[in-house]
Amino acid sequence: MAVRAGIIVTGTEVLTGRVSDRNGPWIAQRLRELGVDLAHTVVVGDRPADITTAMRFMAGEGLSVIVTSGGLGPTADDLTTATVAAFQGRALELDTELEQRIAAIVAPLLRRWPNIDREALAAGTRKQAQVPAGAAILEPVGTAPGVVVPPADGAGGPTVVVLPGPPRELQPMWQAAVATAELRDAIAGATVYEQRTLRLFGIPESEIAETLRRAQADGIDLAQLEITTCLKRGEVEVVTRYEPPAAAQYERFARFVGDRHAGVLFSPDGRTIDELVAATLTARSLTVAIAESCTGGLLAARLTELPGASTYFLGGVLTYSNEAKEDLAGVPAAVLAEHGAVSQETAVAMARGARANVKADIAISVTGIAGPGGGSENKPVGTVWFAVADGAGESTRKVLLPGGRADIRDRATTVAMHLLRERLAG
Amino acid sequence: MAVRAGIIVTGTEVLTGRVSDRNGPWIAQRLRELGVDLAHTVVVGDRPADITTAMRFMAGEGLSVIVTSGGLGPTADDLTTATVAAFQGRALELDTELEQRIAAIVAPLLRRWPNIDREALAAGTRKQAQVPAGAAILEPVGTAPGVVVPPADGAGGPTVVVLPGPPRELQPMWQAAVATAELRDAIAGATVYEQRTLRLFGIPESEIAETLRRAQADGIDLAQLEITTCLKRGEVEVVTRYEPPAAAQYERFARFVGDRHAGVLFSPDGRTIDELVAATLTARSLTVAIAESCTGGLLAARLTELPGASTYFLGGVLTYSNEAKEDLAGVPAAVLAEHGAVSQETAVAMARGARANVKADIAISVTGIAGPGGGSENKPVGTVWFAVADGAGESTRKVLLPGGRADIRDRATTVAMHLLRERLAG
Repeated sequence: MAVRAGIIVTGTEVLTGRVSDRNGPWIAQRLRELGVDLAHTVVVGDRPADITTAMRFMAGEGLSVIVTSGGLGPTADDLTTATVAAFQGRALELDTELEQRIAAIVAPLLRRWPNIDREALAAGTRKQAQVPAGAAILEPVGTAPGVVVPPADGAGGPTVVVLPGPPRELQPMWQAAVATAELRDAIAGATVYEQRTLRLFGIPESEIAETLRRAQADGIDLAQLEITTCLKRGEVEVVTRYEPPAAAQYERFARFVGDRHAGVLFSPDGRTIDELVAATLTARSLTVAIAESCTGGLLAARLTELPGASTYFLGGVLTYSNEAKEDLAGVPAAVLAEHGAVSQETAVAMARGARANVKADIAISVTGIAGPGGGSENKPVGTVWFAVADGAGESTRKVLLPGGRADIRDRATTVAMHLLRERLAG
Repeated sequence: MAVRAGIIVTGTEVLTGRVSDRNGPWIAQRLRELGVDLAHTVVVGDRPADITTAMRFMAGEGLSVIVTSGGLGPTADDLTTATVAAFQGRALELDTELEQRIAAIVAPLLRRWPNIDREALAAGTRKQAQVPAGAAILEPVGTAPGVVVPPADGAGGPTVVVLPGPPRELQPMWQAAVATAELRDAIAGATVYEQRTLRLFGIPESEIAETLRRAQADGIDLAQLEITTCLKRGEVEVVTRYEPPAAAQYERFARFVGDRHAGVLFSPDGRTIDELVAATLTARSLTVAIAESCTGGLLAARLTELPGASTYFLGGVLTYSNEAKEDLAGVPAAVLAEHGAVSQETAVAMARGARANVKADIAISVTGIAGPGGGSENKPVGTVWFAVADGAGESTRKVLLPGGRADIRDRATTVAMHLLRERLAG
């Protein structure tokens, strides 16, 4: 059975673009894992009327579940719980025990900020302890409780899961929501899908469209597979969702892609390039160092993003200025003078220098022109040189990346990760 | 007059959370600048029926403008233009001149990937050159043209602006859309608002709620000001929108906040901490270096994010391992042995070492425990030490940051930026 859901992300700061939403995508993934089809995500401001309109729209579409994020704070403009209660025809009631539990949570604030307004704090706590009658309460992770609000008895319509805005609060509270009888009832009977991901690097998206046509022509029944492709940070991601009986069709499709795109399909099991690099370094007990210029730390940040990074990442040098390239990475002044900071020779010297100074098994360097200034006819903005150095020598690559400063810096980290993976693969 | 708009972000990869949307927030800001009120942003998958449903919802709400992003690619699952044409009651027609212009744009692909399927490429080009009759065409920045589609003659309803998904294509094409008579007509008469932002660091959000209550009690007419507050990367952001005649009320409000939160209000004019630090370094011709441990490059990435960063950022050292702290930043082994890597003494030695090795005027260091492992009772996960060193000495700070690994790393960069700003302010 197809169970459909909608997400309502509330918050004027999100709607107006001042804060980017991380909750919609996260909840979308969780719904998918439960076999629930996401129909729409709607972002609304803090106006109760707009939240109600969005709920009415989703109820009219026949959705079984609505998940809201945000608007549970102690301030008067946070109105999600009251708005959902009214929509579901349930009275808002003060839960005095919940009020005491929230008060215990906020008590440390009084120590941290001794001059805080105690009355304002108590008013906020009381406001947050108002919950719809008959709703399941989700214990606060921060200070705000969530609720799972079924429709009024006999009324039909969607069950609404009300979660707070901060992701680190929302995420554990979603797990609690999934455990409630109210949400379990609403999603009972959802089809469970399998989902698999293929990742490719170094081809345009149009080639994948052609691959799909050829797979179909080859007799693979793509109608059984819900395939989406997208370009993401310079890689092509192919995500396929299917019901369990279509597993054999998927296996045929995955083999077809692997055959047609050998060498380009770097992840047949969905692992990211970051995970693959981390797994290889860990498995082979190798250590890595970096020397970055135009990416200014982004490559190192990427290499240290995963938990446990300290087992393979030792450190590195950020050599933004030419003098830093000499002082920190030992790039000879003559190399800089003759070939320039953005050159194969400088990239190699940076990687060798970082490897030696950090005493790492392998080092990777990036030097390029992120713009908007600094480009020339010979070396336009987007020109980036990379080198990987290990005990056996160096690999290098030059690319011309499209886009603005942020795009070029980000894309360069992806190219660097792939060059590192290829060198590790030998 | 209030002119209201809606945004429809299309793409199964966005809806399912595999790609985070950057277009909705960007368009939201642009609409606001034009005095257009954004009512809803709806994210939908690549199913035409879901795009149509969202448009019908918005038309029913009486919105004057709908902006869509995504779904203009050459592949068969990109159906936005056709769906919008049908919704507006306009036939889709092949524009052969546009087809030739797109063909000229994709020609270089044939050189870059000589084995590409030429027939598939031509089919994609032909598909992208199909535009609704009577629509204004927005020239492609990538390969996809956009369109501005007014309602069918005499039909009433919203004008739909159809833009591509990649931000670097969408953004210039939005500027072209704003120049069309079709969009100008749809937003004629919109009220132009003023918007101002205050930024504060070092207080909980509840204090701002109390400030609003006191401002009202003090006789400031908050009804004339649309104020939203939010916590963002550890800072409190207060954004106020108002019609021009309310300017005097806003000035009173801004002064009230400044008086009540002196020292905490670091940006009375909306500039970000990153912009303020960059402006101060530039104005005083100071250079900066970093030494990072737990943030692993994120602080340097932040310091190099703005164009022109090379005028003040020289470089730095990433000292993830203890040995790198000794080798790259000159932290004495005895300091590490006695006080540990996460300590005031190590932070100070890192900042001093980075300053000396990079020959910068000022250096900032970060060393902490981002988790999930590595915490202890004395130094739990989230413990982070900072030091700023200049010619006159050092400032240090210790914080205990909440959240997971990513939160701690990100939040630590904010604390570092503020410590740097405070040291620069003297």
